[in-house]
Amino acid sequence: MSTVPLIEYEAASPEVKAIFDDIKRTRNVQDVNNFWKALANHPEILKRTWEALQEVMKPGALDALTKEMIYMAVSITNKCEYCIHSHTAAAFAKGMTPAQYQELLAVIGMAHQTNAFSTGMKVPVDQQFMAATTKTS
Amino acid sequence: MSTVPLIEYEAASPEVKAIFDDIKRTRNVQDVNNFWKALANHPEILKRTWEALQEVMKPGALDALTKEMIYMAVSITNKCEYCIHSHTAAAFAKGMTPAQYQELLAVIGMAHQTNAFSTGMKVPVDQQFMAATTKTS
Amino acid sequence: MSTVPLIEYEAASPEVKAIFDDIKRTRNVQDVNNFWKALANHPEILKRTWEALQEVMKPGALDALTKEMIYMAVSITNKCEYCIHSHTAAAFAKGMTPAQYQELLAVIGMAHQTNAFSTGMKVPVDQQFMAATTKTS
Amino acid sequence: MSTVPLIEYEAASPEVKAIFDDIKRTRNVQDVNNFWKALANHPEILKRTWEALQEVMKPGALDALTKEMIYMAVSITNKCEYCIHSHTAAAFAKGMTPAQYQELLAVIGMAHQTNAFSTGMKVPVDQQFMAATTKTS
Amino acid sequence: MSTVPLIEYEAASPEVKAIFDDIKRTRNVQDVNNFWKALANHPEILKRTWEALQEVMKPGALDALTKEMIYMAVSITNKCEYCIHSHTAAAFAKGMTPAQYQELLAVIGMAHQTNAFSTGMKVPVDQQFMAATTKTS
Amino acid sequence: MSTVPLIEYEAASPEVKAIFDDIKRTRNVQDVNNFWKALANHPEILKRTWEALQEVMKPGALDALTKEMIYMAVSITNKCEYCIHSHTAAAFAKGMTPAQYQELLAVIGMAHQTNAFSTGMKVPVDQQFMAATTKTS
Repeated sequence: MSTVPLIEYEAASPEVKAIFDDIKRTRNVQDVNNFWKALANHPEILKRTWEALQEVMKPGALDALTKEMIYMAVSITNKCEYCIHSHTAAAFAKGMTPAQYQELLAVIGMAHQTNAFSTGMKVPVDQQFMAATTKTS
Repeated sequence: MSTVPLIEYEAASPEVKAIFDDIKRTRNVQDVNNFWKALANHPEILKRTWEALQEVMKPGALDALTKEMIYMAVSITNKCEYCIHSHTAAAFAKGMTPAQYQELLAVIGMAHQTNAFSTGMKVPVDQQFMAATTKTS
Repeated sequence: MSTVPLIEYEAASPEVKAIFDDIKRTRNVQDVNNFWKALANHPEILKRTWEALQEVMKPGALDALTKEMIYMAVSITNKCEYCIHSHTAAAFAKGMTPAQYQELLAVIGMAHQTNAFSTGMKVPVDQQFMAATTKTS
Repeated sequence: MSTVPLIEYEAASPEVKAIFDDIKRTRNVQDVNNFWKALANHPEILKRTWEALQEVMKPGALDALTKEMIYMAVSITNKCEYCIHSHTAAAFAKGMTPAQYQELLAVIGMAHQTNAFSTGMKVPVDQQFMAATTKTS
Repeated sequence: MSTVPLIEYEAASPEVKAIFDDIKRTRNVQDVNNFWKALANHPEILKRTWEALQEVMKPGALDALTKEMIYMAVSITNKCEYCIHSHTAAAFAKGMTPAQYQELLAVIGMAHQTNAFSTGMKVPVDQQFMAATTKTS
Repeated sequence: MSTVPLIEYEAASPEVKAIFDDIKRTRNVQDVNNFWKALANHPEILKRTWEALQEVMKPGALDALTKEMIYMAVSITNKCEYCIHSHTAAAFAKGMTPAQYQELLAVIGMAHQTNAFSTGMKVPVDQQFMAATTKTS
C-alpha cells in the first residue's frame, strides 16, 4: 500500500489529465502505471519527471533496449521493488531475450561480488585507469 | 592504502604466478591490475574470481561493451571507487564514445531519482508488470 | 512476516512491560507499534533503543517535525519499508502538510540524482568546501 | 581524480558558458564548483540539472536550510563524498548552527540503527500507519 | 511474485535436474528452495553459484555458523528480503541461539550507526590502522 | 579532511576529557582514535556512542572476534572507508588470522552476489523459512 492515494484519471486535475493524456498517447496505452498515479499527488514532480524521462530514454548514442537494461541494473542494485518489476517488463517489451536477461543478471551478480572485494580490501586505483578516463572523454 | 599488501609477480607463489600469466596473456598486458594483486592474498578467491569473470564477461547474447556499461552502472550505484575507475577505463578501451558515456550517466541519474520516488511513496506494483515478466522469460 | 514473534503486552516480562508502559504513557497510545513488539525479544536492545530515541528526537535546536522529516529521508534512502511507513505517518501526525511532503520528496529525488552524478564521475571536492566546514563547526 | 576533465570557463562552449554565467550570477560567486565543471562535459545534463535544482531547492513549504539538511541526510546515507562536503558547507552557509548539525547527525545515526533493526527482523507494517498516510496526504 | 517462473523438478532439464539432485543429497532435503528454482532459468548461473557456495560456506578457518551469521549481516545491510529470511532460518538450523541472535542484531545496529557517523563527518583514517592491516595480513 | 575539527585531548572540555580518559584506560592506548576526536564535537553523541559500543561489543553469547568480524561485514557492505580500516585493524588485533580474513571476504563477496540474484528476480520467500524463524527464536 502506498503512502499516497493513487490518482485515477477521472479524479485528476486538468493539469494532471493533460500529462496523463500525453503519457497514454506517447506509449500507446489505455492507462498510466501506478508510478504516474502516485506522482500525480505532486503535479510539479510529475511534469518534470515525465519530461526528463522522455529526454533521457529516447534512442540516441545508446539504443532503447540498452538504456532499459542499464535502468534495470541500477534498480536492482538500489533494491527498488517497483522499479525492478516495471523495468524488467519494459525491457522484455522492448525485445530483451531470455538469453540477454540471463547474461544481464550474471553481470550484475559478478559486479556485486567484485565491488565487495574491492571495497573490502580498499584496493588503490591504478594510475593507468585515471589517465585513460581523463584522456578519452 | 589497501588493507592487504599488493602481491607483485616476483613475490607470488607458483599458483598465483600461473593465474597472473593467464591474465596477462588473455588481456595482452604487461602487468595485472591492483585488484588482482590484492586478491592474490587469497589464492582461492583469485582463481574463482578470474575464472567466473571471464565466463560472465565474454561476448554472448550481449556484446562486450554493453556488459561493461552494465558493470559500470552497478559499480556507480554501489559507490565502489576502484570499480568506477577500472570499469569506466575498460568501457572506453572497448570503444565507448563520449556521447554514449553521457547518455549512460543520464540514465543512471534518472534511475536513481525515480527509484527514490517509487521507494519513498511505496508505489504498489502494477499487475501487468508481473504478468509480462513471468510470461516472457 | 517477521523473523521473530511479536511480543504482546500480556505475554511480556515485567521488564518489557515497564518499557511498554512508558512508551504508551509518553506517546499517549493504547498499544505500542510492531517495532517495539519485535524488539521486545531483545529486552536490552529495546531499553537502549527507546531511551536513545527519546533523547535524539526531543525538540532542541531542530524542531520535532524537522527531525521526523530527516528520519524519513534516511529511511527512504535506506529503503526500509517499515520505517518509511512509520515515519511518514509520524510526520503527518506532527503536522507535515501535503505541500511539505511534496517538497521533501522532490529534494530526496534530486539528491539521489546528483549523488549518482558526483559518484559516477568521481568529482574532486572543492577546497573551499573543506575550509567552510572545518571553520564553521 | 575525476573520470572526466573539469571544464574551466575559458575552455567552455558558448552554451556551457551561458549556464556557468547564470550559476555565478544566481549564487553570487566568482567561479562555479567542480560539480558543474564535471557536468559541463554533458551540456544537456548540465542544463537539466541546474534548472531542476533551482526549482527544487527554492524556498517554499520548506525553507532553504531545511531543504539543505535533508539533502545532507540523503547524501550521507548514500555515502557520496563530494555531496557530503558540498551540502554540509552549503548548510553552514545558510545558517546551520553547530547545535543543529549535532542534532542532525544524531537523528541520522539513530535512523540508521532502527532501519537496520526493522529490516533485520522484517517487522510487519502496522495497519494504522497505512491508514494515516493515505488519509492525510 | 518473481520476475521469472520457478522451475519445478519435474519440469527441469536433465542438466538442471542433476544440480537439483546434488543440492537435495548434499542438504538432505526433499525439495530445493525457491532461490534455486528461480536460478534454474539460467542453468550456467545455477551451476556456478551452487559450486561456489559450497566451496565458500564449507567449514574452514571459520566454522559454519559464524559464516552463516556473516551472511546474515551482509543480507540485512543489503536489505535483501529473501536472503534475510533464508539465512536467518539457516543460522537457527545450524544452532544459533536466541541470545546469539540478539547480540548479532545489536552489533549490526551499532555498526550502522557508527558507519553513518564516520561517513557523515568524513573522519580521516588513523595512520596506525593502515600499518596494522598491511603488516598483519 | 573531516567536516569537523578533530578535538585533541588538550583542547577538550572536562566532560569530553573524562570520556577520553575512560576510552584510553579501557583500551589501554595512549590516545583515542580520530573517530572519537570527531565525535567530541558532539559531547552527547560521544557519551552515548561510547557507552552503547562497550555494552554491545563486550563478549557474551558471541565472542569478541566474531562480533568484530560482523562489524567488518556490515562496514564493508555499507562502504564506510574509516570503519573498514578501523574494524579490520581491530579484528587483526583480536587475533583474526589471514585464513579467517580470506574466508570472511569470500563469504561477504558470495553474499553480495546471491543478494543481487534474489533481489533481481524478486524470488518469493519459502514458507518453511518463515516457520523456522518464528518458531525457533
